[in-house]
Amino acid sequence: MGKSTTNWRTKIHEIIFGSDTPQGKNFDVALFIAILLSVLIVLLDSVASFHEKYGSQFLIAEWFFTILFSIEYILRIISSKRPSKYIFSFYGIIDLLAILPTYLSLVLVGSQYLIVIRVLRLLRVFRVLKLARYVRASAVLIIALKNSRHKIIVFLEVIFTLVVVMGSLMYLIEGPEHGFNSIPRSIYWAIVTLTTVGYGDIAPETFFGQALASVLMITGYAIIAVPTGIISVEMAKASQDNNKTCQNCDCEEHDDDAKYCKDCGKKLI
Amino acid sequence: MGKSTTNWRTKIHEIIFGSDTPQGKNFDVALFIAILLSVLIVLLDSVASFHEKYGSQFLIAEWFFTILFSIEYILRIISSKRPSKYIFSFYGIIDLLAILPTYLSLVLVGSQYLIVIRVLRLLRVFRVLKLARYVRASAVLIIALKNSRHKIIVFLEVIFTLVVVMGSLMYLIEGPEHGFNSIPRSIYWAIVTLTTVGYGDIAPETFFGQALASVLMITGYAIIAVPTGIISVEMAKASQDNNKTCQNCDCEEHDDDAKYCKDCGKKLI
Amino acid sequence: MGKSTTNWRTKIHEIIFGSDTPQGKNFDVALFIAILLSVLIVLLDSVASFHEKYGSQFLIAEWFFTILFSIEYILRIISSKRPSKYIFSFYGIIDLLAILPTYLSLVLVGSQYLIVIRVLRLLRVFRVLKLARYVRASAVLIIALKNSRHKIIVFLEVIFTLVVVMGSLMYLIEGPEHGFNSIPRSIYWAIVTLTTVGYGDIAPETFFGQALASVLMITGYAIIAVPTGIISVEMAKASQDNNKTCQNCDCEEHDDDAKYCKDCGKKLI
Amino acid sequence: MGKSTTNWRTKIHEIIFGSDTPQGKNFDVALFIAILLSVLIVLLDSVASFHEKYGSQFLIAEWFFTILFSIEYILRIISSKRPSKYIFSFYGIIDLLAILPTYLSLVLVGSQYLIVIRVLRLLRVFRVLKLARYVRASAVLIIALKNSRHKIIVFLEVIFTLVVVMGSLMYLIEGPEHGFNSIPRSIYWAIVTLTTVGYGDIAPETFFGQALASVLMITGYAIIAVPTGIISVEMAKASQDNNKTCQNCDCEEHDDDAKYCKDCGKKLI
Repeated sequence: MGKSTTNWRTKIHEIIFGSDTPQGKNFDVALFIAILLSVLIVLLDSVASFHEKYGSQFLIAEWFFTILFSIEYILRIISSKRPSKYIFSFYGIIDLLAILPTYLSLVLVGSQYLIVIRVLRLLRVFRVLKLARYVRASAVLIIALKNSRHKIIVFLEVIFTLVVVMGSLMYLIEGPEHGFNSIPRSIYWAIVTLTTVGYGDIAPETFFGQALASVLMITGYAIIAVPTGIISVEMAKASQDNNKTCQNCDCEEHDDDAKYCKDCGKKLI
Repeated sequence: MGKSTTNWRTKIHEIIFGSDTPQGKNFDVALFIAILLSVLIVLLDSVASFHEKYGSQFLIAEWFFTILFSIEYILRIISSKRPSKYIFSFYGIIDLLAILPTYLSLVLVGSQYLIVIRVLRLLRVFRVLKLARYVRASAVLIIALKNSRHKIIVFLEVIFTLVVVMGSLMYLIEGPEHGFNSIPRSIYWAIVTLTTVGYGDIAPETFFGQALASVLMITGYAIIAVPTGIISVEMAKASQDNNKTCQNCDCEEHDDDAKYCKDCGKKLI
Repeated sequence: MGKSTTNWRTKIHEIIFGSDTPQGKNFDVALFIAILLSVLIVLLDSVASFHEKYGSQFLIAEWFFTILFSIEYILRIISSKRPSKYIFSFYGIIDLLAILPTYLSLVLVGSQYLIVIRVLRLLRVFRVLKLARYVRASAVLIIALKNSRHKIIVFLEVIFTLVVVMGSLMYLIEGPEHGFNSIPRSIYWAIVTLTTVGYGDIAPETFFGQALASVLMITGYAIIAVPTGIISVEMAKASQDNNKTCQNCDCEEHDDDAKYCKDCGKKLI
Repeated sequence: MGKSTTNWRTKIHEIIFGSDTPQGKNFDVALFIAILLSVLIVLLDSVASFHEKYGSQFLIAEWFFTILFSIEYILRIISSKRPSKYIFSFYGIIDLLAILPTYLSLVLVGSQYLIVIRVLRLLRVFRVLKLARYVRASAVLIIALKNSRHKIIVFLEVIFTLVVVMGSLMYLIEGPEHGFNSIPRSIYWAIVTLTTVGYGDIAPETFFGQALASVLMITGYAIIAVPTGIISVEMAKASQDNNKTCQNCDCEEHDDDAKYCKDCGKKLI
C-alpha cells in the first residue's frame, strides 16, 4: 500500500476512533444519535400496537441502521492498525452483536428478538465521558469505587449469607401455603425485602413470619448505611487526592481554586 | 406621569416585589396564605364527594381567588419598570397560567380542570427562603448540588444505560405472558425495581427472571451509596467554604461561632 | 408539715424522679418493665383470637396496671415541690392519659379502645438515655439534627412542592379510571412513590403516567442523598465539637483517647 | 499418647483450624466448596419439580455430605487440645446442627426439613475474611460499627417507639375493616412503611389513614439519613485511625502509601 492509502486509513481512524478533531467529534455525535434512534425503534417495535401499525416502516429502519452499522464496523476493522485487537475488544464484540441478529433473522425465525442486544451499544455513551469536564468527575467516581472494592465484597458476603439464612428460615416458618414454595424463591423474597423493594407478590402471613420479616426489613433499612459510609469516605479521599499538591511541603488538601499552599504559603504549581 | 404617580408605582413595587419593608413582608405572607387556600380548594374540589356537596361554594371561592390573583397580576405589570421582563419571566408565566383556566372555562367546557396548574404558584414558597436564616442553608445546598452536577450526570447516564439494558433482557426472559409486554414497559419495571420503589404491578415469575431481578435489586440497593457519597462530600466542602476565612494565615475551616483563628490566633473579621 | 414528712417526700421524689441512687435506678427499671408489660397486654388484647381466649385475664391485668400507674401518678404529684408543674408537663399529661381510658370504660362503652394511648408511655424509654454512655451518643445526634434543621426545612419544602405538583399532573394524566380519583389521593401516590415505599395500591397504567412516574422515582432515589449529606456533615461537625479542646492552642479535633494536643504537644485537660 | 500421636494431632489441628499453611488453605477452600455444594442441594431439593425428578440423587448427595461433615466434626474434636471448648463454641454448635437432622430423619419423620439449618454453615464464609487483603477492610467496618453502637441503639429505640405508636394510631384510624385487624399487625405495617419496603398487602384506605401514612413515609425517607451519617462519620474516623502514625509529631492522617510524615517530614515507620 502506498503513502496515500496509509494517509487515508489514518484519516478514517482519526475520525472513527478519535474525538480530538472537529470531524471526530461530529462523527461521535452522529453515531450516538444513530444508536439512540436505532434503540428507540427496537423499543417502539416491541409495543404490540405500534408493531401492527408501523411494523414495515420499523423493518426498513432496522435494515437501514444494520447496514449503516455494518459499514461502520467494516471501516473500524480496515482503519485499525491491528484489526484483531479491535475485533476481540469489548466494544468490538458489542458492535458485531448489534448487527448480527438482523442478518440471522433471514435464516432463523425468531432471532430478530435478539436485536435488543443493540441496546448494549448504548454503552458507547461513556465515550461522551471523554469530554474534559466529565473526565475528572468519572475519575473520582472510579477511584472511589476501586478503593472501596474490598469493603464492598465483605459487605456483599454478609448480604449473601443473610438472605440465604433468612430465606431458608422463612421457608420453614411460612411454607408453600403462603407462597414460599421453595428455598430459592424464599431467598428471592429475602432479597426483595432486604433491598426495601417490596413487590408484595410474596409476603409473610403468619405472626412469626411477619416478626422475622420485620427484623430483616429493619436490618436492610439500617445496613444501607454501610456501603454509603464506605463510598462517602473513599469519595472524600479520592476527591482530595485529585487536588493540587504542594511541591514544598507535601501537603495535599488544597481547594480547587487555591493558588498558594495553605500550610507553607508557597505558590502551587 | 407626575412625581406622585412614580412614587405610587415605586411604593406598589416595593410592597409586591420586595420583602424588606414590613408591608412587603405582610404582603408576601398574605399572598402565600391566599395561594395555599386557592390550592386547597382545587384539591378538595377534585374529591367527588366534596364536589357534590360544596361544588357551588368552591366555584365562588375559585372566582374570588381568580379575581384576586388577576388584580395582583395587573398590579405587578403596572408597577414593573419593564413590564415585559416580568411578563416573560418564570414567575410571570406561572402567574398568568394560574388565572387563565378559570376565564377559559366560560368559553371552553372542561378547561376548568387546567386550574390544577395553579399548584405551580406554590413554587412561590421559595420566596420564603429569602428569610435570613434560610439564605445560608439553601446557599450550601445549591452550591453542593451545582458542584456535584457533573458526577450526578455521569451517575444518571449509568442508571439510564442500566435500566435500558436490564429492561430489554427481562423482556426477552419473562415476555408478555408475565406482564413484560413491551420493552418500554420492561424499562419502567427496571426503574421501579432499581429505585427500590417496587409497586409489584409487574413482577418476574420465572427462575431466571427472579435471578436477574435480584441482581438489579442489589445493584440498586448498593449504588444509592454513590449519589449519597457525591452529595455528602460536596456538602462538606460547601459547608466549609461558607465559613469565615482567616485574613492572616489563609486557613479556612473555622466554626460558625469562632472569634479567633484556630491556627494562628489572630482575630477573625 | 414536720421535718419527717418533708424527708419522706424528698425520699419519694428521689426514687421516682431521680435516677442517681440505687433505688432510683431500680424504680426506673421496674417502671419500664411494667410499661412494657402493660403495652404488651394492650397489643395482645387487640388480636381477636387472643381476646376470645384470654379476654378476662387481660382485663384483670389491665386493671392491675391501671391501679399501679394510678398510685405512681399520685405519688409523683405528692412528692413534687410544684405539683402543677408536673401535671401540665409532657410526661405528666401522658401519665394521666395512660390511666384515664380504663376508668372511663366503666362509664362510656367503647372508650376502652383509647387504652392504646398507653403506648405513649413507651416514650419513657428515653429516660434510659440518661445512662452515662448514651448521653454523649444522643447529644451528638440531637446537636446534628438541630444544626441541620434549616437545611432540612428547605428540603421538606422542595419535597412538599414536588409531590403537590406531581400529584396534580398525575391526576390530569391518569385520571379516576386508573385509581387516581382525586388530587389528594394522587398526592398520596406521589409520596408513596417519591419515598420509594411503593405499595402498588395505586400505580400508573398509561405510557405518559409511567414515564412521569419514572422521573419521580429516579428523583426520589437520587435526592435521598441530600438529607443524608446534610446529616453526615453536621454529625461529623457535632462529633468533633464534642471532643476535648486544647487549652493552649485552641485546636479542637482530638481523638477521644488523646492525652496530648496533636498540634502543640501540651497535655489535654 | 506418644510424641508421634501428638504430632499427628497437631498436624490435623493445623490443617483443619489453621489457614497459614498451604494445606490449611487448601482445606479451607475444599471445605467451603463442600459447604456451598451441600447448601445448593438443600436449595434445589426444596423446589418441588426438582425433588420429583432428582429426589433420590439428592438423598445420596445429602448422606455423602453428612458423612463427610461428620468425619470433619470428629476430627475437629480429636485434634482440639480442649475438645469441650470447640464443642460449645458458636461454630461447634453449628457444625453439629448441620449433621444432626439427616441422622434424625432415620428415626423421626419430617425432621429432614431441619436440614436447612445446614445453610448456617455458610457463615464459615467469614473465614475468608482472614485473607490478608480483607483483614484491613473488615477491621475498618467492624471498628466503625462498634464505635457507633451507642448511637445505633438510640436510633433503634426511636424507631421502635415510633412504629409502636404509629401502628397503634393506625389501628384506631383504619381498623380491622381495612386489614389493620390487630395492633401487632398494624405495627408490622408501620415497619413495612417506615423502612420503605411497602409490600402493599396492607395499605391505608381512609383519608386520615393515608395522611398519617404519608407522615410516616416521609419520616422513614428522611431519617435513613441518621444511621448513614453515624456510620459515615465513624468509618471516616476508623479509616484514619488505621493509618500510619508519625512517631515524631503524633500526627495521624497519613495516606496508605505515604513514606514521610506530611506535617514534619520525618520518615514514617
